[in-house]
Amino acid sequence: MAQPSDIDIARAASPRPIAEIAAGLGIPETALQPYGRTKAKLDQAFLASLADRPQGKLVLVTAISPTPAGEGKTTTTVGLGDALSALGHRAAICLREPSLGPCFGMKGGAAGGGYAQVIPMEDINLHFTGDFHAITSAHNLLAALIDNHIHWGNVLGIDPRRVTWRRVMDMNDRALRDIVTSLGGPQNGLPRQSGFDITVASEVMAILCLATDLADLERRLGAIVIGQTYDRRPVHARELGADGAMAVLLAQAVLPNLVQTLEGTPAFVHGGPFANIAHGCNSVIATRAGLGLADIVVTEAGFGADLGAEKFMDIKCRAAGLRPDAAVIVATVRALKMNGGVARGDLGHEDVDAVIRGCANLGRHIENVHSYGVPVVVAINGFTSDTQSEIRAVENFVARHGTRAILCNHWAEGSKGALDLGREVHRLATSGVAQFDPLYPDDMPLLEKIETVATRIYRADEVIVPPRIRGQLAAWEAEGYGHLPVCMAKTQYSFSTDPTRLGAPTGFEVPVREVRLAAGAGFIVVICGDIMTMPGLPRVPAAASIHLDSEGRVEGLF
Amino acid sequence: MAQPSDIDIARAASPRPIAEIAAGLGIPETALQPYGRTKAKLDQAFLASLADRPQGKLVLVTAISPTPAGEGKTTTTVGLGDALSALGHRAAICLREPSLGPCFGMKGGAAGGGYAQVIPMEDINLHFTGDFHAITSAHNLLAALIDNHIHWGNVLGIDPRRVTWRRVMDMNDRALRDIVTSLGGPQNGLPRQSGFDITVASEVMAILCLATDLADLERRLGAIVIGQTYDRRPVHARELGADGAMAVLLAQAVLPNLVQTLEGTPAFVHGGPFANIAHGCNSVIATRAGLGLADIVVTEAGFGADLGAEKFMDIKCRAAGLRPDAAVIVATVRALKMNGGVARGDLGHEDVDAVIRGCANLGRHIENVHSYGVPVVVAINGFTSDTQSEIRAVENFVARHGTRAILCNHWAEGSKGALDLGREVHRLATSGVAQFDPLYPDDMPLLEKIETVATRIYRADEVIVPPRIRGQLAAWEAEGYGHLPVCMAKTQYSFSTDPTRLGAPTGFEVPVREVRLAAGAGFIVVICGDIMTMPGLPRVPAAASIHLDSEGRVEGLF
Repeated sequence: MAQPSDIDIARAASPRPIAEIAAGLGIPETALQPYGRTKAKLDQAFLASLADRPQGKLVLVTAISPTPAGEGKTTTTVGLGDALSALGHRAAICLREPSLGPCFGMKGGAAGGGYAQVIPMEDINLHFTGDFHAITSAHNLLAALIDNHIHWGNVLGIDPRRVTWRRVMDMNDRALRDIVTSLGGPQNGLPRQSGFDITVASEVMAILCLATDLADLERRLGAIVIGQTYDRRPVHARELGADGAMAVLLAQAVLPNLVQTLEGTPAFVHGGPFANIAHGCNSVIATRAGLGLADIVVTEAGFGADLGAEKFMDIKCRAAGLRPDAAVIVATVRALKMNGGVARGDLGHEDVDAVIRGCANLGRHIENVHSYGVPVVVAINGFTSDTQSEIRAVENFVARHGTRAILCNHWAEGSKGALDLGREVHRLATSGVAQFDPLYPDDMPLLEKIETVATRIYRADEVIVPPRIRGQLAAWEAEGYGHLPVCMAKTQYSFSTDPTRLGAPTGFEVPVREVRLAAGAGFIVVICGDIMTMPGLPRVPAAASIHLDSEGRVEGLF
Repeated sequence: MAQPSDIDIARAASPRPIAEIAAGLGIPETALQPYGRTKAKLDQAFLASLADRPQGKLVLVTAISPTPAGEGKTTTTVGLGDALSALGHRAAICLREPSLGPCFGMKGGAAGGGYAQVIPMEDINLHFTGDFHAITSAHNLLAALIDNHIHWGNVLGIDPRRVTWRRVMDMNDRALRDIVTSLGGPQNGLPRQSGFDITVASEVMAILCLATDLADLERRLGAIVIGQTYDRRPVHARELGADGAMAVLLAQAVLPNLVQTLEGTPAFVHGGPFANIAHGCNSVIATRAGLGLADIVVTEAGFGADLGAEKFMDIKCRAAGLRPDAAVIVATVRALKMNGGVARGDLGHEDVDAVIRGCANLGRHIENVHSYGVPVVVAINGFTSDTQSEIRAVENFVARHGTRAILCNHWAEGSKGALDLGREVHRLATSGVAQFDPLYPDDMPLLEKIETVATRIYRADEVIVPPRIRGQLAAWEAEGYGHLPVCMAKTQYSFSTDPTRLGAPTGFEVPVREVRLAAGAGFIVVICGDIMTMPGLPRVPAAASIHLDSEGRVEGLF
């Protein structure tokens, strides 16, 4: 019998009142701001009270290089959290919030799948508690203040040609990528070329996710560099008086959202920065809340470990003083086969050799995560098409890399399918073997940081940096930004910058095309290859089949 | 001793749990979707259960022609609701939601004032329950689908030059009024000129406010006309498959929000269409919910009675089958003096003659509202600078118009200051004298409807309609839109289209500059003069002084 669809499973669930879930973590009802009956935010005073609590163990779920076959990182994070709960541990999970816009393009939500989901999934995938709308408002208020300042005499001397702050919308809308604003005459301001990014690409999103509290949020907002003056001085958001009002718009959004898994494990779903132009991790505030409340916290980071885990370690953990205790690398037999050269249409046939070839990708990710001093376990997210020989091949490969691969079946069985993984993760995380150390020190020059990531994590032979970009990096160092970590933006499909080079490519260079300062978020974005900051809709958008049924329930979204 | 500021009064209040406020109206806790502890939405099933309840009395609060001196329509609506509660009646008030964007331009919220406010005022003035963000998303999804359709082959043959659907943002941002989109090459779509309006000017906002339920909402969304094909056929949102997904985005937003006044009177604050390009009334769903739950419902409509009351009667009541039982016209001595020719700086001096001259404006509004068969009482919203002689002059004038003027002091005293008004309103509303009849029948030709409003309400000598616009009106009649009411857009400061002609001007013409079809909302917008659908920020925006204080409270917004 086929398993019911994700949405049918989610609807058949009987969610517990969110106050009950909160009580399981020792959160009093007075510390909750309810949004409906199954969602709540934790209030500021309660969050502040958590600062001195003993900290739980922190587990990162990351993955091999993604393929269209799917890895199931979120699903595994949920399944692992449920398994830890089922094993009697006080567990919590921390996820990113999905972006609304893409829901109307390709069909599919982002709240796990099968029997490993967070609920209420419709809400989480749509407006949720309004965090992304608040980020959109705060971002666009700054944009309006910039053009308004120029319109009313431009006392700061902002060079309209060098304004880098664009606008954002949580929508896939290619028509807004590249626009000319302020047409129509003097009353509409000074025409200039600009555009919109999708909200998850906003620096405000990254700031919300890296801020440690409201005061830090406001400081970071003020530090945003929006462009340059005619004499090439950087212009900060605080010079426009924008930081206070932006913080006001974000005062609710910065509070973490509490929901639950299908099995009632508490889940903090909060923040959702892009994993390419930003760091792709849920908020520091939510992760810290989890660590103050639970004995073990499972979180995830976007894309494969070369991007997600690297940024989790070198940006998020560095900024927030977090120390991961263990990492799970999610792999599927299907995705390993694709990394081993099998086409998507041929994944149904057993092919042990291809699995072994694809394991080279997994092996490099294991080595990379180990290099941070964090112990690793591999989760094989099981599919019915996997054969015993294929699975054994992965297990043997992983054993040779000094760790274990554990077959999981949480998609079909919930926590029951991930108990072995849960036991091993708990053992590792509480073993005290982790000796976390970021890849590079703060005081390494920016160029060297880029080279370090590219050669040690991607295994590139060389980094190609044009003189113009070297000059820019040196200028930022002179302005006091040299201590920032680098946020690498490259294709998620390959260790290299060529999305077709799967597996464990060698003999390649990493060309740096552009660098951008995210002074508020606190990193330098290093763009290697094309980056899309505003997606488009496909020829037949999912929107056309999305509607409410006669009972007012959402159809066609998942 | 000076009265504390609005925000200090609101903060000193001890709001009751929203479930308690709901219980006072007989709403069970299970019918509430809480947003925090003092805001909630009423759920769909409960709303449906109200359909057959006996209906309460409906009271409209409207005003004389507005001046910069301020009239206090919202404040009076709140004070009157509180007074009716204090008199032992089961009362509810229905207000519009304030727009977020303008908060960062001019200082000031829109949730009443003094001791006549709805709370929590910071929330209501900022993101509230996210309704406007949902409207923004739904509106912009349709915009993205239009450009996406053209980009992917344009099967419908949409003429890019004749797309009338713009984008919206809840922000004062003049730079977005007039833009060129889709620059940058083929992958970004087909360049065309377009722009953004503020969210409250969106037809989606008007639709949300006029829809009677979810099914009606989806039908209206599908009926939106977004532009024309190359062969001049109108293109509807449903042809782009947008209606279902837009309804999904609005499924929560369409549920009315329940909050409370400072004195604990239940207040439905829901929807906020512009009062010029749209009809300026809160939602039909909220008003109907109020009528099914309370014995008497007090609501308001934007601007003076020539705009707000006319649209309330001819658009909202007509569409929803509502029958107002009484109307309150709010006047202040200061605003009457300005209508009588006194400059703003001179309002502090007694000037009975100016008051009497200004009463001509009030008199015309009284006659107009009476012409709908609705009994009227005038509320004089008292200021400390008003003199006894000035107030007596208003009372005498109003008595000669066959009704009463009642001095109120709810701003300083809350319900206690509006008890006399409450008694008179209750007497009128329950007297059975109302014989509501809209100004014109559905089947009157569109041009004649425009002439009827202009000559009978504004008292114009003539309406000037260019042949091009006559042709457009005739074309819409041929397409089946002839039964729609007209939504007049003109300056709110004068009965005429000249904002400097205060009082009760005569001897003027009303030139019609443009007409627009709002097929989903169900009206024809008739633009007489300039209309601003995207405001700008002032030279020194309020944003610069807005911030969070050390306790995380909003400062500088009010």
